[in-house]
Amino acid sequence: MRPREGRRTVRRTGKKREKGKTFEVRTDLALESREGAAGRGGAENGIEVREWKEKNGGISLTEVEVKNEKGAKAMGKPVGLYLTLETGRAGDQDDGVREDVAEELAAGLRRLACRALKRKEEAGFPGIHVLAVGLGNPYVTPDSLGPRVLGNLRISRKIAEDGDLPVVSGIVPGVMAQTGMETAEILKGIIRETKPDLILAVDALAARSIRRLGTTIQLTDTGIHPGSGVGNHRHGLTEETLGIPVLAIGVPTVVGAAAVAQDTVAAVAAVLEQGSRTRGVGAWLEGMGGEEQYHLIREVLGPELSQLYVTPPDIDETVKLLSFTISEGIHRAFYGI
Amino acid sequence: MRPREGRRTVRRTGKKREKGKTFEVRTDLALESREGAAGRGGAENGIEVREWKEKNGGISLTEVEVKNEKGAKAMGKPVGLYLTLETGRAGDQDDGVREDVAEELAAGLRRLACRALKRKEEAGFPGIHVLAVGLGNPYVTPDSLGPRVLGNLRISRKIAEDGDLPVVSGIVPGVMAQTGMETAEILKGIIRETKPDLILAVDALAARSIRRLGTTIQLTDTGIHPGSGVGNHRHGLTEETLGIPVLAIGVPTVVGAAAVAQDTVAAVAAVLEQGSRTRGVGAWLEGMGGEEQYHLIREVLGPELSQLYVTPPDIDETVKLLSFTISEGIHRAFYGI
Amino acid sequence: MRPREGRRTVRRTGKKREKGKTFEVRTDLALESREGAAGRGGAENGIEVREWKEKNGGISLTEVEVKNEKGAKAMGKPVGLYLTLETGRAGDQDDGVREDVAEELAAGLRRLACRALKRKEEAGFPGIHVLAVGLGNPYVTPDSLGPRVLGNLRISRKIAEDGDLPVVSGIVPGVMAQTGMETAEILKGIIRETKPDLILAVDALAARSIRRLGTTIQLTDTGIHPGSGVGNHRHGLTEETLGIPVLAIGVPTVVGAAAVAQDTVAAVAAVLEQGSRTRGVGAWLEGMGGEEQYHLIREVLGPELSQLYVTPPDIDETVKLLSFTISEGIHRAFYGI
Amino acid sequence: MRPREGRRTVRRTGKKREKGKTFEVRTDLALESREGAAGRGGAENGIEVREWKEKNGGISLTEVEVKNEKGAKAMGKPVGLYLTLETGRAGDQDDGVREDVAEELAAGLRRLACRALKRKEEAGFPGIHVLAVGLGNPYVTPDSLGPRVLGNLRISRKIAEDGDLPVVSGIVPGVMAQTGMETAEILKGIIRETKPDLILAVDALAARSIRRLGTTIQLTDTGIHPGSGVGNHRHGLTEETLGIPVLAIGVPTVVGAAAVAQDTVAAVAAVLEQGSRTRGVGAWLEGMGGEEQYHLIREVLGPELSQLYVTPPDIDETVKLLSFTISEGIHRAFYGI
Repeated sequence: MRPREGRRTVRRTGKKREKGKTFEVRTDLALESREGAAGRGGAENGIEVREWKEKNGGISLTEVEVKNEKGAKAMGKPVGLYLTLETGRAGDQDDGVREDVAEELAAGLRRLACRALKRKEEAGFPGIHVLAVGLGNPYVTPDSLGPRVLGNLRISRKIAEDGDLPVVSGIVPGVMAQTGMETAEILKGIIRETKPDLILAVDALAARSIRRLGTTIQLTDTGIHPGSGVGNHRHGLTEETLGIPVLAIGVPTVVGAAAVAQDTVAAVAAVLEQGSRTRGVGAWLEGMGGEEQYHLIREVLGPELSQLYVTPPDIDETVKLLSFTISEGIHRAFYGI
Repeated sequence: MRPREGRRTVRRTGKKREKGKTFEVRTDLALESREGAAGRGGAENGIEVREWKEKNGGISLTEVEVKNEKGAKAMGKPVGLYLTLETGRAGDQDDGVREDVAEELAAGLRRLACRALKRKEEAGFPGIHVLAVGLGNPYVTPDSLGPRVLGNLRISRKIAEDGDLPVVSGIVPGVMAQTGMETAEILKGIIRETKPDLILAVDALAARSIRRLGTTIQLTDTGIHPGSGVGNHRHGLTEETLGIPVLAIGVPTVVGAAAVAQDTVAAVAAVLEQGSRTRGVGAWLEGMGGEEQYHLIREVLGPELSQLYVTPPDIDETVKLLSFTISEGIHRAFYGI
Repeated sequence: MRPREGRRTVRRTGKKREKGKTFEVRTDLALESREGAAGRGGAENGIEVREWKEKNGGISLTEVEVKNEKGAKAMGKPVGLYLTLETGRAGDQDDGVREDVAEELAAGLRRLACRALKRKEEAGFPGIHVLAVGLGNPYVTPDSLGPRVLGNLRISRKIAEDGDLPVVSGIVPGVMAQTGMETAEILKGIIRETKPDLILAVDALAARSIRRLGTTIQLTDTGIHPGSGVGNHRHGLTEETLGIPVLAIGVPTVVGAAAVAQDTVAAVAAVLEQGSRTRGVGAWLEGMGGEEQYHLIREVLGPELSQLYVTPPDIDETVKLLSFTISEGIHRAFYGI
Repeated sequence: MRPREGRRTVRRTGKKREKGKTFEVRTDLALESREGAAGRGGAENGIEVREWKEKNGGISLTEVEVKNEKGAKAMGKPVGLYLTLETGRAGDQDDGVREDVAEELAAGLRRLACRALKRKEEAGFPGIHVLAVGLGNPYVTPDSLGPRVLGNLRISRKIAEDGDLPVVSGIVPGVMAQTGMETAEILKGIIRETKPDLILAVDALAARSIRRLGTTIQLTDTGIHPGSGVGNHRHGLTEETLGIPVLAIGVPTVVGAAAVAQDTVAAVAAVLEQGSRTRGVGAWLEGMGGEEQYHLIREVLGPELSQLYVTPPDIDETVKLLSFTISEGIHRAFYGI
């Protein structure tokens, strides 16, 4: 929730915009990166979309695997597995649907944890020490998902260390403006002292599309990357930086205001395309260089561009409900309850 | 912060758009309405802009008086006096500037209260009973300004009723989703029981322009009107409905996401105007009918159009700081401290 | 949670202390009043203890009916029906037990509501308008039970007024230090405007015994009386003052520090009674006049005597859990869900 | 705020109780330990009370230095310097008094920091890295002082590292029930990563006397010891365990309910002493063994003895006000503002 530096990135895009560069509005969702990279997916490009299950209660599950550096480049997301649950709005779900979501979450977490720990799923996690990390600012509603999930979590370390169950510890490290420390610094220290086997980070994300707010849950074994989350994690939290595998659970709670502006430009272009008299102009607008487009949007939003976000009015309720569903999913995954 | 029905209004506009109708993005600020009504102001049209003071610390004060129904129609705001303080961002102010803002606020409140009560300012307010009302949802950050100001307010009724001072009572009525009651119902009942002389309502507002978020304070003697505020007050809170004068203090904390979209359309049009090849298209886009523009924006934002808002990332801090400044201003105005 | 004036009351007591007067430590629980009045109960004295059910999950239910003024005098509680649920500690209950408690609560509420409205229980409450009132200070943990229950409550008025169901509205009136108004004033006004049939007040109580904290729920049709609750309601909220029946749900969350002191005096006396050399002194101490005992305790606790309370360390969690159980009970009683 | 094990300690006491052992009610204040150890103070016993300043605004300052193991044994407090500010109740102070308190606090902190870092006070703290630690449970009011102070603190590390000023970082480690980790584990890790020169821990304390609640601030260079604080720090936070000096700021916010019971026993004994007939019994009661006294109090309070505490009704407000004064004091001490 602090100003983001360097969020303005320039990328080569697919089909139509081949020649130009375009102002990229950030998304933390692999699913959205994949949509942006449409046409460039496929196993030959190192991106594999393996399953699409339509579940009860309107839950659907997509698995995107980024298999190699080629795929990572195409997606703008690191190599690893991304499981995405799409559900209805938390506020519209009844208890049954919420339980289904928790169960799907648990299944996904178990799968990622086994992959990360190189274990068979039947083996369970006896004696494994999981350090849960609630990222984000507890005092800023759309950034408070992580701290809230931690607030609901049953912590077993030091309380009931039963050899048959995993050991769960947890920390809400705060954000750099409050601590003067990188989250990575805090975690490195704690890891060295308490020697967990696995980090499970929970974070609020930024999406590209408004309809994803509070309706999509992303699980991944790639950790948290610089510049992701609603806040800004300058250093990543990954196996590379922390020395142990890092699973991440994220839910988009904001869309950058710039995304709305960019969508509007695209919509205007599409409208112009449809008119015979204006068709050429639409194409020109669509193909407008990223630099120009960036300046256009910057003019609309003012210099505070990157700080402004769009969030739904019921975000407080949504974050609260999702925090219960996610902690429930974690309980099921690791305690089997 | 609840869905707003019927926010889509259609108006005749000034200069260029004479022939069309345009989708109006809502603003609660008279200052912004006046900007929208530019060229149609002036005393002959029932709108008087009487003062513009450049104060110390970068505070400026504008007074807009809507004098009659003609002015009310031009402005889309009821007859009455609107005092607008423009300051820097709350987070950037030092204590001295905050005190200056509180003092300006106090002066404005005294002036409006005297006007409403038909008193001379020298007379002060001995024995006058002011009922302060903190509108909005305390659990939704950008809507919590009113409840927070009430939380800071010194309440004198029943505690120290000194005949030389005004009597201040206060209520946080909650929002309809929480109470099942219109705020007007609750206030009417309380007014009948406790017989205040004046209502002082504090509310979070929606603005048209992002740069006004947290930097503009509007004082008015026209009360609260249906559809205003961040939340949605179905029934107005006015002297007409409540039987006693209603002063309102408001600060914009959100901008509708639709405003960003509309601004983008305008910016695109302006860009097209500049190109010799695209000039005609820009003019056409600019003059696009309100209906069409509305559909364009609706397509961009989806059916939840009216619920989405843009708010700055530091809104929690901003609302907290402003709530102190505003309660301080009320204390100075009525207790003289 | 404000200073209580005149809490020092003097009463004639039973058996041993016949001659003296004793400093009474306040309780809001009829059950505890009855224990204090032991030996003076019985139908001939206007007190009827009609049922004592041992329920599943360790829940027990006691019904005390104060039938007439004679009983009211003996009990120090007004004429009416008091249903008391005794359960284990909220933190120790599993979901099943919590559901049982909610169900018992619902049954009790339905019974009291039918009694108050002079309806048969089979008739249900179609079209009946219930105004739920969350008493207490939301910002003071042990006093926040009422506001928290209201925060969980489904409000149906103005949203889904289905003729077959009751209409529920709700208000958190705040405390006098925050509003400058008696709760009775606020409620009278709202009642006049919205014409509910029944008030359902939820409040945190003071008990006499530490073991009752968070484990006892009292339902009554006698409303809220002056000086009851954790805070201090100067004016009662009763059918007499408000014009419609007032049901009250209360849970003790504090014990006055004076109660601990008084219990200690009694324990010392009992110890002295047991020693042959000290027996007479024990009896003397036990029979010590209320005035003397009061001064003794006052000396121990200092002049802030009546403001200090004892509360368990897990009160935050307890109030949170109970607020869910109570709102669940209200939903079941009135919406049948 | 968690159950405390092993709080029942037995000590040899001074004057009258020489022969018996007495149940000790815990205090975290050196001032109260000294009162308990009255008659045994004096430099020859390793306890030095060096200054007693009566300051403006009713602030007084006492310095107790425990000079050696002999003094530590007599006091039940480790070797080190204890500065105690006694002020009026936070709620009764005006802004001027609060500034005086902050200034005294700053002076005390500077003195302790210089002592700990072996620096001259004129040298200031350029480049010194202070890690502020907010101990306690943010969700339990009387235990939330530390987290609240951290919430107010200006953090300079990573933001504006000016060589002329100290570098301040901060952490709210949470409590063991929330994290599954000892605070010492978390801090050790962070210290290893970020290499601060000094820990400054802020914690809520338990006092022996009700009148100290919210009115006494203790500064010490001895760190935090096992079993101190409102919560229970199983492992101490000291230079010995953490490797760098640990200053601690503490304010008592609770008194154990057992203390009220014990005071009552003492008061009863004193009353009995005064009667000619009961004198011997009073002396006997006073001299009652600690074991017996413990059982007596345990009987009064029930088995949850050690968990119950007495806290004033305005503790929320008190903790809030004190958190501002303390953060102000820290700012003055280290930033000189």
